[in-house]
Amino acid sequence: MIKVGILGATAYTSLELIKILLRHTGVEIAYLGIRRDEKPAISEIFPALEGRIDLKCKGIEPEDVPGDVKLIFATLPPTIAMRYIPGIVKLGVRVVDLSADYRFKEKDVYEKWYKAEHVDPDGIKTAVYGLPELFNNEIKNAQIIGNPGCYPTGTILGLAPLLKNGLIYSDDIIVDAKSGISGAGREPTDTTHYCERNENIEAYKVGCHRHTPEINHILSRVAGTDISIFFTPHLTPMSRGILNTTYAKIKDGVSHNDIQNVYDEAYQDKTFARVKTKGKLPRVLDVANSNYCDISFNIVDNRVIIVSCIDNLIKGAAGQAVQNMNIMLGLDETMGLL
Amino acid sequence: MIKVGILGATAYTSLELIKILLRHTGVEIAYLGIRRDEKPAISEIFPALEGRIDLKCKGIEPEDVPGDVKLIFATLPPTIAMRYIPGIVKLGVRVVDLSADYRFKEKDVYEKWYKAEHVDPDGIKTAVYGLPELFNNEIKNAQIIGNPGCYPTGTILGLAPLLKNGLIYSDDIIVDAKSGISGAGREPTDTTHYCERNENIEAYKVGCHRHTPEINHILSRVAGTDISIFFTPHLTPMSRGILNTTYAKIKDGVSHNDIQNVYDEAYQDKTFARVKTKGKLPRVLDVANSNYCDISFNIVDNRVIIVSCIDNLIKGAAGQAVQNMNIMLGLDETMGLL
Amino acid sequence: MIKVGILGATAYTSLELIKILLRHTGVEIAYLGIRRDEKPAISEIFPALEGRIDLKCKGIEPEDVPGDVKLIFATLPPTIAMRYIPGIVKLGVRVVDLSADYRFKEKDVYEKWYKAEHVDPDGIKTAVYGLPELFNNEIKNAQIIGNPGCYPTGTILGLAPLLKNGLIYSDDIIVDAKSGISGAGREPTDTTHYCERNENIEAYKVGCHRHTPEINHILSRVAGTDISIFFTPHLTPMSRGILNTTYAKIKDGVSHNDIQNVYDEAYQDKTFARVKTKGKLPRVLDVANSNYCDISFNIVDNRVIIVSCIDNLIKGAAGQAVQNMNIMLGLDETMGLL
Amino acid sequence: MIKVGILGATAYTSLELIKILLRHTGVEIAYLGIRRDEKPAISEIFPALEGRIDLKCKGIEPEDVPGDVKLIFATLPPTIAMRYIPGIVKLGVRVVDLSADYRFKEKDVYEKWYKAEHVDPDGIKTAVYGLPELFNNEIKNAQIIGNPGCYPTGTILGLAPLLKNGLIYSDDIIVDAKSGISGAGREPTDTTHYCERNENIEAYKVGCHRHTPEINHILSRVAGTDISIFFTPHLTPMSRGILNTTYAKIKDGVSHNDIQNVYDEAYQDKTFARVKTKGKLPRVLDVANSNYCDISFNIVDNRVIIVSCIDNLIKGAAGQAVQNMNIMLGLDETMGLL
Repeated sequence: MIKVGILGATAYTSLELIKILLRHTGVEIAYLGIRRDEKPAISEIFPALEGRIDLKCKGIEPEDVPGDVKLIFATLPPTIAMRYIPGIVKLGVRVVDLSADYRFKEKDVYEKWYKAEHVDPDGIKTAVYGLPELFNNEIKNAQIIGNPGCYPTGTILGLAPLLKNGLIYSDDIIVDAKSGISGAGREPTDTTHYCERNENIEAYKVGCHRHTPEINHILSRVAGTDISIFFTPHLTPMSRGILNTTYAKIKDGVSHNDIQNVYDEAYQDKTFARVKTKGKLPRVLDVANSNYCDISFNIVDNRVIIVSCIDNLIKGAAGQAVQNMNIMLGLDETMGLL
Repeated sequence: MIKVGILGATAYTSLELIKILLRHTGVEIAYLGIRRDEKPAISEIFPALEGRIDLKCKGIEPEDVPGDVKLIFATLPPTIAMRYIPGIVKLGVRVVDLSADYRFKEKDVYEKWYKAEHVDPDGIKTAVYGLPELFNNEIKNAQIIGNPGCYPTGTILGLAPLLKNGLIYSDDIIVDAKSGISGAGREPTDTTHYCERNENIEAYKVGCHRHTPEINHILSRVAGTDISIFFTPHLTPMSRGILNTTYAKIKDGVSHNDIQNVYDEAYQDKTFARVKTKGKLPRVLDVANSNYCDISFNIVDNRVIIVSCIDNLIKGAAGQAVQNMNIMLGLDETMGLL
Repeated sequence: MIKVGILGATAYTSLELIKILLRHTGVEIAYLGIRRDEKPAISEIFPALEGRIDLKCKGIEPEDVPGDVKLIFATLPPTIAMRYIPGIVKLGVRVVDLSADYRFKEKDVYEKWYKAEHVDPDGIKTAVYGLPELFNNEIKNAQIIGNPGCYPTGTILGLAPLLKNGLIYSDDIIVDAKSGISGAGREPTDTTHYCERNENIEAYKVGCHRHTPEINHILSRVAGTDISIFFTPHLTPMSRGILNTTYAKIKDGVSHNDIQNVYDEAYQDKTFARVKTKGKLPRVLDVANSNYCDISFNIVDNRVIIVSCIDNLIKGAAGQAVQNMNIMLGLDETMGLL
Repeated sequence: MIKVGILGATAYTSLELIKILLRHTGVEIAYLGIRRDEKPAISEIFPALEGRIDLKCKGIEPEDVPGDVKLIFATLPPTIAMRYIPGIVKLGVRVVDLSADYRFKEKDVYEKWYKAEHVDPDGIKTAVYGLPELFNNEIKNAQIIGNPGCYPTGTILGLAPLLKNGLIYSDDIIVDAKSGISGAGREPTDTTHYCERNENIEAYKVGCHRHTPEINHILSRVAGTDISIFFTPHLTPMSRGILNTTYAKIKDGVSHNDIQNVYDEAYQDKTFARVKTKGKLPRVLDVANSNYCDISFNIVDNRVIIVSCIDNLIKGAAGQAVQNMNIMLGLDETMGLL
């Protein structure tokens, strides 16, 4: 069993990571680092884990990491993760980072959107964007994986085949995204109060959410040209799940079959990207608690409407992180995820 | 007290209507007609009304309507309402119809989308579309009001000032709407089962929802040119409320102030249309159980993103119906609705 | 119009109070005091009030209260309210206090459960417990009303007629209560985080919730003997509403009719206490957004199971406070509440 | 891989069963029988299964069952299951029945509560009640398992150690249970409509739910004396989960340690029964999507309050069924369930 650890084990994504890893037959959790002063057993932080894992938390400095740990998932918040990851890397430990700190190649884009100086400019140069359906080969040998954001995962998987194959216009793409509340993190705030979210839906950060540059960054690579989507997220009264409704314009002569074909080509051998049959639409309910991304497309006149859907905590975070780990460790990509 | 009645008193919108009318100081509920064979007291159908109204239901034929009733709200389903309303009208009773049967001037458009022959072609010629913020003058003297659909109400209020004043391009408008489940009616179906809706969000009838022609119909009148929006509704896990996120392109040179001005002009003396101050966004929570429509707009580059928000059962149905009644009866438009 | 005010206008109960008072035709809101440093218009705190009330908040010291205000609702937290209310009383203003600070006659019981010295011992001597269905006569002339807690309201209304008439044993009463999350207040905490409450139900403070002594205190007065119920509250995934399931043992020979009779006697002329007909059970849905308390009872062998149900923010707080105000001001008890 | 099947594959519990079995490394799903006329692939019934299992449904007659199937889970409704199970048994196939049809030894008790003649009186004589924490040894060799009901599972696990050891009085036990809506099944009804359940909680079948005799039946066996609990279920707005709050009276001299000891003795080697440490309470959130039953107890004066909590679809149905299967097949009890 390969030993792995988690840096920042108190996040909602950490709980999901632990549940997946406990079920994984190729790896073993040997380290859980947290920032809090007290270092309780993890089951005191997450009562759901009582009797399932017997591990006391430790600190998050390099010296806290046991020597036999080969890979670490970092679930620290953005701008914090990059302070600790270089020390981990120096230990020779590979890292899957679930913050945004290693998703951008360009230091200045990161710094503009995350409003902090990037303290590991070398790290981001070699880090690999961990979207396995697109970048499997690079992931294999990466030292640091920038695990994709929750909104970008579904959005990119929905758009990539069409942009790569030039079937849609690249300058007029609208993504209207609806997220469950766990996407806002575990911190209690006015925004996460039950009575502010229940029986409510609202847009936020219209056209200025920081997942926008991430989506553009990756789609531009895929398309080979500058892509600038328009992105509006919404807070939806459910604990988990994201549904992205994407509106684009198809080029003249592009047919349903053309689009079907590029999706098939892109995803027919990708377990976790499921393209719906004609007439069916994705539902959060069908991907909840799973690593699947469901994708549909409808053509109406000159538009294509792509709906993509994931569990934000699994395919949008912990599940995808394990998928990346599997690839990095040469294991079956789906291990622990079915 | 003017006597009014409800034809089809078992719908969710009927319960809201009754609650509003009980609080209304100008009218009195004198008749409740239902299609079921048994005719219980209304409080047996809606236990919430116990002790608040003591009225036994009756049938829905013209002879069931008491002679002193001056106005009737019809909450029968589309294609059913038109079979009963002509008989009511013949009694000299005015009608606010909450089905779709009197919203279209064109018989063929109705028949195409509602898949039924319209049996009251004379009625639709004189019926008035009951969106008071736009058509107050026509409503005053109408015999039959076609009360607007829930999706159209918020969508039209958000777009009308911009289209009327030509500030946006009329051929590239996308409406991404999110509705609570009461919009699907009171019938138990696979779609309305709690476990299919809770912790779920999904799109449906992408580009083919029958509120689309209604929106286009009215916006075309307002704009003086053919409007064809693209409309995608979503089922959202909440009992009530609709949030519409509308994407349009502004014409060259149009500024924030220009748009602010046309909204101000349109709605500054309209109690129930509230335009948010810059930087604020509507929330279902703020309009729930009220007759308000909250509207915001954001300009990003050449796009304007309009968010509009209503309670689908109130401003999207029962509240708006009472607002129409108030206007028809020469009462203060806001009576019973504040 | 009689002028009234609210001391502590940022609470969830304050929003409900304002909505009710805006609809009330006998009083006018002339003062809103808040503890925050900034004093915005109330609609900046509650966007739902935009366009409905145009009032800037002020401080909470006696000098902040306009001279023509006759009655003030205090919605400050327990242990804070008692610091400000004596100053208000000195102005000759009557007070309905929604904290727990004036619900107990005995200083020591309060101090034990609220872990603070009571700084207004004179006030609690004359304060009246504001449960109008039981104490209407005392309320009329009270200077200070201790508005009942949310759990006590429904529990006491369910039990009082049976205890007063000696139909049940007083030493073996279990109350299993289920509350919506607004009962936990507006403060964002781990407990009120959406993802901790949604898809979850849990008991808390088993046998030691501080509403227990309040219930016992009042029921003992009603019964004329010491009552000590056993009380377990639960947090239920809904924004508002409380359902109490109460288990008691009936004395030998007590019949369904006997119990029906004492309920009828107690509540037949009480608008807001509705006793369900045999076979029907209360639902939060039927009392939501209303001032009603629905009550049912079932007899099974030697047990009676009483289910009582209120909207915790209305009959359990703001609505009951207005009911008290109506009585104090000699208005119809139901004014603004139907 | 041992081949297993499901009879009645369209239920919510069937979906959970399939998900668990797909992850199970010792068995393989070889048969899915449904009652509907069309026999689609299972992924057309449950889109969540797309790409995870490629199996077409078949009928539910014995001849539909492939010859190599060794064990069948029956998820047909009560009174239907017993019509098909004898035929399956004749094939030599073992059965875990998730209906109530094989939970009672006494034909007349079943017939009274389920209002149908039992057509397999021989079957119920040999059937074993499948609560593995109590009846592991009998389960091993059973031909037919009556898989416990969702309410009974948590209730019995909470009470059994105390009753077996005589620590509580057996004639005064109240169980107040709160269930998520999936417990009401997949049929769309007035009761399962989203708008009737959301923002609502209500009691139903007070003192007359048909899980009551099941609980009494098993607890009487455990206690060696007739047990008759009082049971009130409530519908709670969540998809899944049950929390039981049980009130009992402890015998003189029984201490916290005494109770702790009998729980420890009963469950210390039972993976899926987790007794909380003092001061902690179970939460649906901690057992959701798992086969765990969390149990706490509080002693207040002469009462013990036991809170027990399960996922009704897993430990209350599909998970427990797999646990039974594991025991029957000689596999590790926890296989597929961690």
